[in-house]
Amino acid sequence: MTTATLDLTAVTTAATRAAKAAAAASDVDRAAWLHAVADALDTNVTELVAIADSETRLGTARLTGEVARTTAQLRLFATVITEGSYLEAVIDHADPAATPPKPDLRRLLKPIGPVAVFSASNFPFAFSVAGGDTASALAVGCSVIVKAHSGHPRLSERTAEIVTGALAAAGAPEGLFALVSGREAGTALVQDPAIKAVGFTGSIPGGRALFDLAVSRPEPIPFYGELGSLNPVVITAQAVQARTAELAAGLAGSFTLGAGQFCTKPGLVFIPAGTGFPARLAEAAKDKGAAPMLTERIAEAYPDGLRSVASMTDATGAAAVEVVSGSVEQDAATNGAAPVIFRTTATLVLERPQELLEECFGPTTLLIEYSGPDQLSEVLALVPGSLTATVHAQPDEDVSGLVEQLAGLAGRVLFDGWPTGVAVNWAQQHGGPYPATTSLFTSVGATAVRRFQRPVAYQNAPETVLHPALREANPLGIPRRVDGVLVLR
Amino acid sequence: MTTATLDLTAVTTAATRAAKAAAAASDVDRAAWLHAVADALDTNVTELVAIADSETRLGTARLTGEVARTTAQLRLFATVITEGSYLEAVIDHADPAATPPKPDLRRLLKPIGPVAVFSASNFPFAFSVAGGDTASALAVGCSVIVKAHSGHPRLSERTAEIVTGALAAAGAPEGLFALVSGREAGTALVQDPAIKAVGFTGSIPGGRALFDLAVSRPEPIPFYGELGSLNPVVITAQAVQARTAELAAGLAGSFTLGAGQFCTKPGLVFIPAGTGFPARLAEAAKDKGAAPMLTERIAEAYPDGLRSVASMTDATGAAAVEVVSGSVEQDAATNGAAPVIFRTTATLVLERPQELLEECFGPTTLLIEYSGPDQLSEVLALVPGSLTATVHAQPDEDVSGLVEQLAGLAGRVLFDGWPTGVAVNWAQQHGGPYPATTSLFTSVGATAVRRFQRPVAYQNAPETVLHPALREANPLGIPRRVDGVLVLR
Repeated sequence: MTTATLDLTAVTTAATRAAKAAAAASDVDRAAWLHAVADALDTNVTELVAIADSETRLGTARLTGEVARTTAQLRLFATVITEGSYLEAVIDHADPAATPPKPDLRRLLKPIGPVAVFSASNFPFAFSVAGGDTASALAVGCSVIVKAHSGHPRLSERTAEIVTGALAAAGAPEGLFALVSGREAGTALVQDPAIKAVGFTGSIPGGRALFDLAVSRPEPIPFYGELGSLNPVVITAQAVQARTAELAAGLAGSFTLGAGQFCTKPGLVFIPAGTGFPARLAEAAKDKGAAPMLTERIAEAYPDGLRSVASMTDATGAAAVEVVSGSVEQDAATNGAAPVIFRTTATLVLERPQELLEECFGPTTLLIEYSGPDQLSEVLALVPGSLTATVHAQPDEDVSGLVEQLAGLAGRVLFDGWPTGVAVNWAQQHGGPYPATTSLFTSVGATAVRRFQRPVAYQNAPETVLHPALREANPLGIPRRVDGVLVLR
Repeated sequence: MTTATLDLTAVTTAATRAAKAAAAASDVDRAAWLHAVADALDTNVTELVAIADSETRLGTARLTGEVARTTAQLRLFATVITEGSYLEAVIDHADPAATPPKPDLRRLLKPIGPVAVFSASNFPFAFSVAGGDTASALAVGCSVIVKAHSGHPRLSERTAEIVTGALAAAGAPEGLFALVSGREAGTALVQDPAIKAVGFTGSIPGGRALFDLAVSRPEPIPFYGELGSLNPVVITAQAVQARTAELAAGLAGSFTLGAGQFCTKPGLVFIPAGTGFPARLAEAAKDKGAAPMLTERIAEAYPDGLRSVASMTDATGAAAVEVVSGSVEQDAATNGAAPVIFRTTATLVLERPQELLEECFGPTTLLIEYSGPDQLSEVLALVPGSLTATVHAQPDEDVSGLVEQLAGLAGRVLFDGWPTGVAVNWAQQHGGPYPATTSLFTSVGATAVRRFQRPVAYQNAPETVLHPALREANPLGIPRRVDGVLVLR
């Protein structure tokens, strides 16, 4: 199941058959499959981390933590499905006296069918073979075909072997999970009639190309892509005055974390004009050394991105961006990526939004100095959709207008923190307006399962053909809405 | 607000401003706006029905019922939003002891922004200016710009006047609702950066063209289209034997209802081979007279569609379809559309699925004779996604496999009933796999609101900036999930 030479039709045919069996399995069974996968990954953590470190250079500490996060995620989805609300069971009893008479109608969410998952480069565990997309699709009863990321092929194969073995041992249907590799297999998957949805984490150009394929199929399918995010941070005048050192230290830690290769890296930081913050930030970033990047290609792209930012000019041809610290000319492939801090003004961004508001993958951030709240609001209106937006303000400041604006451009709004670090829980939202994501859903947290479900209503159905969730006596003991009223069990 | 010559920018600018105000309004306020619109439509029912009848020829009885359904729908959405579950409020308290420490995270659904709604021809009230798309978008705090259907321009304008007046009197923000007309305005709306989602009910070609525009924008937006549906009906051998007369009468009533212009009209009926059912159906349909169709264009298209079905041939060039009753050659524009019943075999459909499985708008249905359960399953696998699928079986038959297959191709599965007639309640699902709809949502029933909402999570936010739904004390008294546990209030 893990070689590039596999016949895709055999894989999708098996996935279609397995999806039927998984849809018919109980939540308890599927939860057991998820636990089996989590346990197997935990058992093999040392070997997996060693392979991952050799392929991604992310370091064993970070990678070990990422495995723990990945297995916790699998177990969270097991909890989510056994709790039962995810089925959104709704019962409306018949009302023959109504005009017109109302039939008995019962609705729940069913699995959508085989799902294609595209692994990410920067999270070889949590957003890859056994990551959140795979876990949430398996949880609800879909089969999954993962497209391996070329940045960690051996890890992908080994993880897939472990997942496949664990699922088989736990009694899951054959073909429930498969791995394919190669760009060609990926695009073929998105276009394959057997595939009913796609999960993707990657770049804007790559993601948009696959999105375009998914929506231009004869039967378009949902494409759940996480593409790119600038993650704006706003620091108010009062906050920068009260806490310059703390903010500088926090930001320096956040934008350099993991060599700046987080999808939630703060890429734009709005600060009041004329403060000492840029110098303090440079000071705080001084001891953040160069760090290896994920792949040679990514490392080579970093200085290109830096040069592109540094070379921007205003309408008169003068430089629009100042290098506060670090060096644009660096050999990141040989020496690792070293932090670079840029600085410009909101006035210049308003002149050149297309160019200045582009993501640069790596340990760099752009400080944007604003003259006051009105200019801040004006420039924020140009920031593309993001996964996160952060505000640093003092406790007595009224930031409600600012927060409302930030909530319009991002899926998660943080207060007095830093966006790197995404908790895996019930309330998480990891998604935002385009290009952050291509849907109204999240790829992290309990509600990620909703991406792979479709509603079906049964009208005047005999009990015997109904899913247990919809039977009158509620044998599963799950929360349901009955005649408009939410009933816990 | 209701003329074709309006400057679209003025309309979208007002809609953007109004959406902000509506998003900030309370659920109680928005519920009052919906009630005001419903009351105003009820007050003007006589005038509205008269205009509608003159433009659509649907008859005053049906149209009066449709107004009642439309106002009940507006009031249902008022109930839905005041109940509060639609916000999907989730609170995860901080856990500083976790590894890594977990922040306080609170999530809810916010309105997506200005929505474009395309009216349908066949439901001038329930799926038009003040129909389900408009009601569900207004309910959650979106503004709405309706594209009028060319089939009922005067009704659209008069309804829009009443809606606009009622909203203004109820204190809703100016620009919350607007009407535009003309194909050009419609396509411009879908491409306008101010528009954040589209609701559409109409044909496959028209809907797909607008879908393609929506997903090819620089910032793609969700396109909630209801496009076309064959609504397969399966009658088992036992059922046809036990209840031929009853089934024939029911089907005759359903496929001719409203001149066959329902999106849930049963267009394909699978019956066992070699029964007397076709003759009984012809008998039952005999007294269903010709009925005027919605527009001249639709009436002219009906005989074209009939001829297309009748002219189909098998591999040898022999006729593949038999006319059981009615006449293919008819002048529906002058005399109204008269019922036509066709008949073919599953064997022929398996040879020619592309041609035989096409929707024909009007009072016609295609009987497909199957040799047994295996052939039935084989031919059902070729039926495109539908809004509904119906099974007529006897109480002691095991139809679970058949029901599972039908649930895979339709959003609503009916037992021993007919698909025309869509209850507006909490459990309804009016949507299905493409081309029935272009999303995983419903356009009828309580959950239709979810189409126009996007999730936002707030991390470590001060109470003062939080929506009341997320404040610790739950001042709205709504159901929420707190630390993984569903709490009613």
